[in-house]
Order: sequence, then C-alpha cells, then structure tokens
Amino acid sequence: MRNTFEFFSTKNVVFGNGSVNKLGTILQRFEARNILLITDQGIKAAGLLDRIAGILKEEGYNVTIFDQAIPEPPIETAVKCYEFAKAEQKTDVVIGLGGGSSIDLAKIVALLMEYGGHPRDYFGGENLVPGPIAPLIAIPTTAGTGSEVTSVAVLTDTENNLKVGISDNYLRPAVALLDPELTVKLPPFVTACSGIDALAHAIEAFTAKDFKYIEAEGELLFQGANPISDALAVKAIELIYHNLPLAVQQGSNLEARGQVLMGSLLAGMAFSNAGTAAAHALAYPIGARSKAPHGLVTGLLLPYVMEYNVHTSPEKMEAIARSFHRNTDGMTKAEAGREASKAVLELLHKIGLPAKLSEINIDVNDLPEIAEKALPIERLIRNNPRVPTKESLLELLRNSY
Amino acid sequence: MRNTFEFFSTKNVVFGNGSVNKLGTILQRFEARNILLITDQGIKAAGLLDRIAGILKEEGYNVTIFDQAIPEPPIETAVKCYEFAKAEQKTDVVIGLGGGSSIDLAKIVALLMEYGGHPRDYFGGENLVPGPIAPLIAIPTTAGTGSEVTSVAVLTDTENNLKVGISDNYLRPAVALLDPELTVKLPPFVTACSGIDALAHAIEAFTAKDFKYIEAEGELLFQGANPISDALAVKAIELIYHNLPLAVQQGSNLEARGQVLMGSLLAGMAFSNAGTAAAHALAYPIGARSKAPHGLVTGLLLPYVMEYNVHTSPEKMEAIARSFHRNTDGMTKAEAGREASKAVLELLHKIGLPAKLSEINIDVNDLPEIAEKALPIERLIRNNPRVPTKESLLELLRNSY
Ligand SMILES: [Fe+2]
Ligand SMILES: [Fe+2]
Repeated sequence: MRNTFEFFSTKNVVFGNGSVNKLGTILQRFEARNILLITDQGIKAAGLLDRIAGILKEEGYNVTIFDQAIPEPPIETAVKCYEFAKAEQKTDVVIGLGGGSSIDLAKIVALLMEYGGHPRDYFGGENLVPGPIAPLIAIPTTAGTGSEVTSVAVLTDTENNLKVGISDNYLRPAVALLDPELTVKLPPFVTACSGIDALAHAIEAFTAKDFKYIEAEGELLFQGANPISDALAVKAIELIYHNLPLAVQQGSNLEARGQVLMGSLLAGMAFSNAGTAAAHALAYPIGARSKAPHGLVTGLLLPYVMEYNVHTSPEKMEAIARSFHRNTDGMTKAEAGREASKAVLELLHKIGLPAKLSEINIDVNDLPEIAEKALPIERLIRNNPRVPTKESLLELLRNSY
Repeated sequence: MRNTFEFFSTKNVVFGNGSVNKLGTILQRFEARNILLITDQGIKAAGLLDRIAGILKEEGYNVTIFDQAIPEPPIETAVKCYEFAKAEQKTDVVIGLGGGSSIDLAKIVALLMEYGGHPRDYFGGENLVPGPIAPLIAIPTTAGTGSEVTSVAVLTDTENNLKVGISDNYLRPAVALLDPELTVKLPPFVTACSGIDALAHAIEAFTAKDFKYIEAEGELLFQGANPISDALAVKAIELIYHNLPLAVQQGSNLEARGQVLMGSLLAGMAFSNAGTAAAHALAYPIGARSKAPHGLVTGLLLPYVMEYNVHTSPEKMEAIARSFHRNTDGMTKAEAGREASKAVLELLHKIGLPAKLSEINIDVNDLPEIAEKALPIERLIRNNPRVPTKESLLELLRNSY
C-alpha cells in the first residue's frame, strides 16, 4: 500500500473574459523583455495571433512569432521552432497560444531553451528533465486537453509513425491564462470533441483507483485519486456536463464557453495528478485505427467504461449521478452509477457525437487486438478502479460496438 | 465589475502518513545541501524536531536548527533567526516545522535570506516582496491555519502591541508537506480551536462575494469566490465538519486527524485566494480584547455570520447544509442555510468550544466599538456576501452575545 501522494499544480491560473489583456502585468513578474510566441495558422487566420501579438508589442515587448505549429506536431517542428527562436534573439518567456498541440510544442521548446539538446534526449525515461523549463505561459483556445496545466507534451515521430511523449512535472506551464472569449469561434464539432474529452479526464480522474492501492513503486506521475484531485474533478464534471450542449449548439454563448473552459482546466489539474484510466488506454489503439479525434474516441468509450466500473466505485458513480442532477431516488448506488453512464450516452447524442465503435470505422474483428494493445499501457490501466483483464475489456468493447 | 481572477497555489503538496520520510527526495529537487530548520520548543519536547533532524542528517544534509520560534512571533525573533542562520552557513532550503507561527516565521526568514533587509521593510505596502523567496518547505503540526499554502505571514510588533503582516503571493511555500502522524499528540483544545478556524476559512471562502462583484481596483490578494476556490472549499467543509469531533475526542484516530489536516490544507488553498470575511474581520477586535485563541473566536462567530449572510448566499448556504448531510427536505434554500448554521453551533458544543461572546470575557458595552473596528478592515469586509453596516454588524454581535 502506498501511504503518500503528491499533488503538483501550476502556480498561477488567470481566468476571465478579456484576461489576455493582463499579459503585460503577468510578464512583468518574469522581468521579461523578449517573448517567443508559438501558435498555428488557424489561430492566425482567426485573428487571435494579431490580437495577442498586438497586446505584447503595445506594451513594448520584443516578440518573435513561430506560427507553424500543427496538430500532432512532428518532432521536426519542435526542432525547427527551437532553432528558429535561438537564431532570432534571447528568449525570456515562451507563450504557447492555441489548442493542446501548440501548447505541447511550446512545452518542448521551453525545455530545449533551458537545457538544449534534441527532443529525443527526453523521450520515454523518467526524470530526464533536469529542472524547471523556461518560463511558459499557456493560453488555450480550445477547452479540452487541459494542457495548460498538465505535465505532458506529445509529439509525433513521423519516421516510425508513433506518438511520443515527454511527461514530467517540470513541463507544467508557469502560468495558465484562460480567456473564454478566445474560444467562441471554435466550430461545434471541435467544441464537442474537446469538451467530451475534458469530461472523460474528469470522470476517469475522479473514479481512478485510490492512490493507496495503485500497484507500482517509486515516484509516479499518475498516482490515482486523492482528495485534492477529487475536489477539482467533481466540480469539473458538474461544469462540463451542464454547459457543453449549450457551448456546442450556441457557440457564441460566452457564459457556457467559460464554464466548459473552467471545467477543462479543473479536469486538467485533476487528471494530471490522478491520471486517466481504461477509456484513455483503449483510445490509443482505437485512435490509431479509426483516425477519429482523440476526444471523440474517449467520449464514445466513456459511458461503457463507467458501466464497466460501476461496482468497484459505487460511491463515486453515485456522486457523478448527483452532480448531473439525475433523479436517483430509491436507487442503489450501482443503479445510480448506471444512471450516470446513461446520462453520458445522452450527452453524446445532444452534442452530435457517435456512441458506438461501429460508427467510427472499427472492424468488429479488431476488438481482441484492441483489448490486447490497451492492457499493457500500465500508467493508465493501473488507475482503472476495476482491474482490467483481456476478457473483461473485450466485453466492454463489444458493449460499445 | 471585475472580469478576471487569478488563482495562486503551492506548486507541490505532499500528503500522507509517514510522508516526512520523503523529505530527502524532495530536497534533491532543490539540489540542496544546507538546510535551515525553524521550529519551537513544543515541537522539540514532543520529539518531532529530533525525528525530522534525524531524517535530514541521515541523508547527509547539513542542518542548522533554530528552535526559538514562539506563538505570535515578535519581529525581533525573525531578525534573530535570520542573523543566526546567516552566521552559521549558506542556506539552500528553509524548513518551517510547527504550527502556523513557526511557518509564518520561516516565510519571513526565507524572504530575508533572499533579499536581506529588515522585516519592517516589507510591512503593509503592496508588492514589496521583489520576487520568489528562498525555497521553503512547510511542515505543519497543527491542522488549522493553512499557513503551509498561504501567502500571509504574521508577526507581532511588541513595541506597539500590534499584529503586523506581510502578504504576498511570493510568500507561499514551495512545498507543503503534511504528515497526519505529526498531529496525533495535539491536545483536544488546540485541535478544536485550529480545526474550527479551518472550517471558518472554508466557509468564509466558499460564501465570499463572487470575484466579479468585489469592489476594489487593481491586483488583490483576496479576490472573492471563484470556481477553483469553491471546489476546494466545499470539500474542506465536508472533511472538517465530519471528522473534527473524532479528532478532538479521540486524538489518536489517525484517520480523523488526516481528514481534518486535508480539510485545513484545502481551506488554506481556498481562502488564500478567495479571502475570508466578516467572522475574521470581527475576530481582530474581539481577539485583542478577550485574548482567546484566534480559532476559538472565528469559530464562535461563524454560525452567527452564516445566519447573517443566509439571504445573500442561499445557494451556497444550502450546499453547505448538504455537505453536512443535514436533512433539508422541503426547506427553502434560506431555511437550509439556517440549518447549516445550526449544525455549526452544535459542532461547537461537540468539540467543547464556547458559542457565546459572553463566555469569553467580552463586555456587552464593547460591542459597538468592536463593530466599528471591524468595519474598516476592507480586505476582509469587502468579501462578505452581505455588505456589512455598523448597525447590522452590531445586531450580529448581539445575537452572538
Ligand atoms: Fe484525453
Ligand atoms: Fe483564521
């Protein structure tokens, strides 16, 4: 039994409509002059790059812009960005502006800024990041990954067609700056996929195995549920569940956008300590096959994983049903948990996402291999409250087909 | 209307029975060799100083010990500790071990270590702390102040018989290390006073005016309620309320001790961002008169302040009643809020604390002056959900007499 958990968090969260206007105040705390701003073409086209760069230049900062971030950024993009920035000027602070990919890229570049080398030097092993990375301000424009507060950065190894990650508490941005106004133009489908992913983060973190019973030795990044992650996750669940349909169906609703963005932030704080579980483990082999967006896959799996876990986490499942405001009068805890799982299925319909694996280009004959590939993803699988076996995962997959 | 809030937190919380044994691992992250350990005679007598110093020495650290911390530490003690440590050796990391006073003292010393000068240089004004203080690990041995994660340090100006505070986000310890085992010897009365203070922190933070409506300009340390502090505070309320009687009446119950310690941590994270309100403002003039412990006074006032606020925060008050597991069937929100206030009164009885100002050496004729003195404590009073007036505060005080 483990007797201790650690909770890591971003030191400073700034949240609110128009909060990007505080960038100058925030940068003063770092005594910064030279800023490297990392973003992508979509953000540029939406006018957000001009807006942020304008704020920075108006306040007298020297801004170097790298606007070539792309989704699932290749290792080469990180190297290119680092080389480009190094050639331009000394960098005091890195800003990552965009979806999870731009922020992930900014994490890697902030790491290279501080310690040099090549991204490959930091892959895979533990404790390869020697210390704090260059000061990083993360400004998300989607509500989902929680990357603005997490310890993980994912790149694509295009040579080997693999996703490769660097996970280290030192990768957490120094500041997470969240401005709901930046998210209002996000299309319904992207809003739905990223929002449901955030709900999956919150629910998987909340129902994760208690940290005491995680079967692993030494320092862990994903440590299982603890009272701090529980407190954050349950609030995230409430905020996302009740506001995501409106954010999807009425994108200009700034209030709903803000609540979902806050939910995804809290979910990020929770899952980057507690971890995610079976839905995320299964999403890897499924995503590789179907090419569907990560959030679409985790969201699709979520109700079936909840159903799968209902008897090992009845209290937590009932708490989820309560935070969904489902009527659970006279139900057992497990029945209430099933009610929560049903509510997530209904949510998928409301936000227009598929609720069956058969709808997303997965062959029924691939299910055994999917179960086999998910099972060894220890850092996620060991967090699942019900200990997964190949057989039970296969049954889960058949239920969700 | 304010549109943005900031949430600051300790980067690293370590929690669990026996977690002090992780000190070596934690210190490695700071590449530390020379440790200044600040504590008091009570901790020494309880054997805790030997235990912690032993762990450090065994792992090869050079430890300088200052064991002259005292409750409500005078300015001179901070100067003395700083001069002493400076003369001994270079300090890489400061450890504050003990109640809120030892940790507060350690904050000031870690500040002086980094920027020199005299504590008076940093009193009162805003932004007087130029940047991060020396790395500080806070190890609380009481469950109440939350000082291990807060931005505040209080000293006593013995010449002018005043409490003086330095409040700055840079004062937050780098690591909060909480080991419930260190708290089991705490006497029932101290457990009760500090535990009910933590409940007051949680409830005042939770019911604080929403950050949007705080009437003040510029950067604020106490910003009013926001969704992050709400999430933490409501969990704190639940943990403290349900476990404090057992922690008081059966001190060796490690489980109850742990829950109360976790509650006070969460309350500290919440109130150091959201702020406290009327109970804490009134506690200043009352404490100066009655000499009763801070927690005894805030706890005594808490149910009356809840009653006072019941119509401005009915939703939050109802949520408190729910987290107390009070039966509120068929009640209006305000009635449920009254039920919550009643529950706190009953809690005071259970833990053996007075529930009337008349019991703690306050003259009924002093009530008007108490109201008058509390009203100008802007940073607390402006957080109270119901805007206080002299008349209504006086009525509140009469109800609690
Ligand atoms: Fe995800
Ligand atoms: Fe207090």
